[in-house]
Amino acid sequence: MPVENKHPLDRIFHPASVAVVGASIRDEETGWVARLIDFGYGDKGEIYPVNPNADKVHGLKSYPRVNDIPYPVEYAIFNIPARLTPQVMRDCVARGVKFVHCYAAGFSETGTEVGKRLEAEMVKIAKDGGIRVLGPNCMGIYSPDSGMTFNEDFPKEKGRIAFVSQSGAESTRLVFLAQDVNLCFSKVVSYGNACDLDSPDFLEYLAQDDETDVIALYIEGIKNGPRFVSAIKKCMEKKPVVILKAGLTESGAGAAASHTASMAGVKAIWDAFFKQTGAIPALTMDEVADIIQGLVRIIKPQGRRVAVIGRGGGIGVIASDICERAGLKVPPFSHATQQKLLNIIPEAGAGMRNPVETMVGMGGAADFYLRGLPIVDEDPETDIILVHMAIDVYGGHTSDLVQQVTDSAYALCAIADSIKKPMAVALFPGGHPDTLRAVGAARDNLTKCGIPVFSGIESASRAFSKICNYYQFFDTHKEK
Amino acid sequence: MPVENKHPLDRIFHPASVAVVGASIRDEETGWVARLIDFGYGDKGEIYPVNPNADKVHGLKSYPRVNDIPYPVEYAIFNIPARLTPQVMRDCVARGVKFVHCYAAGFSETGTEVGKRLEAEMVKIAKDGGIRVLGPNCMGIYSPDSGMTFNEDFPKEKGRIAFVSQSGAESTRLVFLAQDVNLCFSKVVSYGNACDLDSPDFLEYLAQDDETDVIALYIEGIKNGPRFVSAIKKCMEKKPVVILKAGLTESGAGAAASHTASMAGVKAIWDAFFKQTGAIPALTMDEVADIIQGLVRIIKPQGRRVAVIGRGGGIGVIASDICERAGLKVPPFSHATQQKLLNIIPEAGAGMRNPVETMVGMGGAADFYLRGLPIVDEDPETDIILVHMAIDVYGGHTSDLVQQVTDSAYALCAIADSIKKPMAVALFPGGHPDTLRAVGAARDNLTKCGIPVFSGIESASRAFSKICNYYQFFDTHKEK
Repeated sequence: MPVENKHPLDRIFHPASVAVVGASIRDEETGWVARLIDFGYGDKGEIYPVNPNADKVHGLKSYPRVNDIPYPVEYAIFNIPARLTPQVMRDCVARGVKFVHCYAAGFSETGTEVGKRLEAEMVKIAKDGGIRVLGPNCMGIYSPDSGMTFNEDFPKEKGRIAFVSQSGAESTRLVFLAQDVNLCFSKVVSYGNACDLDSPDFLEYLAQDDETDVIALYIEGIKNGPRFVSAIKKCMEKKPVVILKAGLTESGAGAAASHTASMAGVKAIWDAFFKQTGAIPALTMDEVADIIQGLVRIIKPQGRRVAVIGRGGGIGVIASDICERAGLKVPPFSHATQQKLLNIIPEAGAGMRNPVETMVGMGGAADFYLRGLPIVDEDPETDIILVHMAIDVYGGHTSDLVQQVTDSAYALCAIADSIKKPMAVALFPGGHPDTLRAVGAARDNLTKCGIPVFSGIESASRAFSKICNYYQFFDTHKEK
Repeated sequence: MPVENKHPLDRIFHPASVAVVGASIRDEETGWVARLIDFGYGDKGEIYPVNPNADKVHGLKSYPRVNDIPYPVEYAIFNIPARLTPQVMRDCVARGVKFVHCYAAGFSETGTEVGKRLEAEMVKIAKDGGIRVLGPNCMGIYSPDSGMTFNEDFPKEKGRIAFVSQSGAESTRLVFLAQDVNLCFSKVVSYGNACDLDSPDFLEYLAQDDETDVIALYIEGIKNGPRFVSAIKKCMEKKPVVILKAGLTESGAGAAASHTASMAGVKAIWDAFFKQTGAIPALTMDEVADIIQGLVRIIKPQGRRVAVIGRGGGIGVIASDICERAGLKVPPFSHATQQKLLNIIPEAGAGMRNPVETMVGMGGAADFYLRGLPIVDEDPETDIILVHMAIDVYGGHTSDLVQQVTDSAYALCAIADSIKKPMAVALFPGGHPDTLRAVGAARDNLTKCGIPVFSGIESASRAFSKICNYYQFFDTHKEK
């Protein structure tokens, strides 16, 4: 791996060798060594188990201590009790380790003097010895390119989204949510107590990382406000940043103080931050997933006017309300567009004004996609096309429904390439097991064709609106 | 069926006989006759197909005209072209029919003079002849008690929820959404153009219907404001009404005008209406389903303070924010409660303050349900218990996860009866097919035990907050 011209933090995502200190001999299948082997890191770098009570771990030679390893060690994982970490850090310094991921907990997050002192001692040894520390109390690095992971069920494919998370569970959550719509990551970092490496370090790295197009961030608190703002601005110059800032309500701030001892901060300050930087705020992890999907898959909308297309008159009215509440509009098509649509589907009547009510059944919807979407695409009053796929009607089940869902997805995939405007699908999940399976397969097809798929009108319109905000900020910013 | 002391409209849900005018001989399996037979109406009442070109339909003797039927006919379904309806209505008058459900479309909703004239003519004949008309352009009646349905896939079980819907597709939608959480209906009406019977007729009936505990309503427009308000008030004296009023934005109002020619009305007036009547407003059909589930399954909360319990520290902070934004609070437990929780789970640390972070894995969560929930139930600072089931973590998949999800649901079911406070579960769906199946089974178990299950923290907290609003209105109203 060439290291020239690379940011110094790049090596944490691509270490040439990893020592696992506290390599488990009991639950071998779920330990760090097994995980790295399973995930393919072993094919790209060296794994050195460290365990004084074992000769071998998962077939690999085990060493009593880090400084017994007779080869260079770039990265070490601490899977050991907190009280042992100062000594092991000294061993790492002796061995010339560059990065330590302290998975172990029991430090400052406990709120105890012992925990705080241990963390400070460990950091001092590391700093004096030239080691950067990730954690403690965190899941660490997922970097599919190098085979590094903290969860063996994560996708092995790499994508162009990065996620920096103060919460370990939420970092897992977003990877799985993204996987459901065939989105993959360039890098994910769960950074925990941030005793050394903190969110601005990773943001500054990701700003210049040409493997990352979109950045997501989960934070509860920050330690250095100006540096954080500066890092976000650096990112925003080149790529969008979606931020779930948790703890902005009184209830949430109390919870954050207990969780990561974070000072959650005043809502007004964070409102000003979002306004000043243009970073995209999200309120739930589902919304983070929706927005990053939109950013990756949708070209820049030229405005906020949505064409709503699908079966059912009532859902069209509800969808129009939802869109407008989210900050979008559902205006009537031009007269010419309405006439063209009526020419191909004369029986549609007023259902061609926008929203479009397609004909009965999913077959009627699929037929409209092929004949009607190109007309809507040309409409001068439309900026965005939102197709809602009513799973007849949103959850019902008949024996031929599975085939109809599949056909509808194929029809959309067939027409998608010729549509010039940003287009998305709201795909209602349904409840019947067969319907769920068919919807899952349809979502898979659609997203593989690059069409973003949302779980409903609400999530789709929220994501669209925030993406419009982002481009608006970007345009204003560029003009200055 | 005894008719004494019953509201006159009760017979529309329990007719002794149904004539299907325009009984289909081609698509027999999906026609109205087959549907009524399949759904069991044939075991309770008489079905008379009417089709001049057939001797038999689906094995039943067919008649050329309604007035050829030599038996009493209480209810007739018009599955015929609009232009034929005046003559058939005359036949119905001659035969002494009491109710006509005009499924046919092509009337005033087309906006044409021909359509409006036909509708007026049909109504006049009916009125003069003593027939009440449902529709036209609607799905009609679903009444599982009598075997009446407009969809053969609807549940045959009856429940205690009624739904009155101006949209046919939305009426279907809510039945399937409710079915996913084991909720059934007493009566569902899709009433379309409302040329005669309108939402206030059904609301007045449902106010006094002792088979209905909760009423849901989907409306775009109303024809007689004072009568509508009065009907809602009559209902609210005895049972809650949840209303999805569509078309309250500029975009939505335009869509409603095209869909049902409804004047959607001014938002300020509807805001005042909700404030005055205490009816519960919902913005999406998913929210309607969530609120009715809560109303049916949750006892009255004594306040808005929520205990948030589940795995993951980050989700606890996010959940606290979501709850507070929805109008709830997540305050710390009393000191005594925190001490009791720490006694049983000493390693939990600050994760016992509220929100509660249960131990790693779903097994850790299930263990907490049994030991910790009774303690939370006694906490003086808690009114509502919200358990979020992280499907490790919200969508991941391991081979033993299916069993863990099942075990967690069993643990909750086992403890549920002894919990005195209102309790609900936010059950994240996950993405892996095996996870989806396990979650579906868990939801089935939980809801069969009477525990309301929501798809996430957001939907659960929204529903809880609106249910709190309802009881608050109810209490204030009672005191006056």
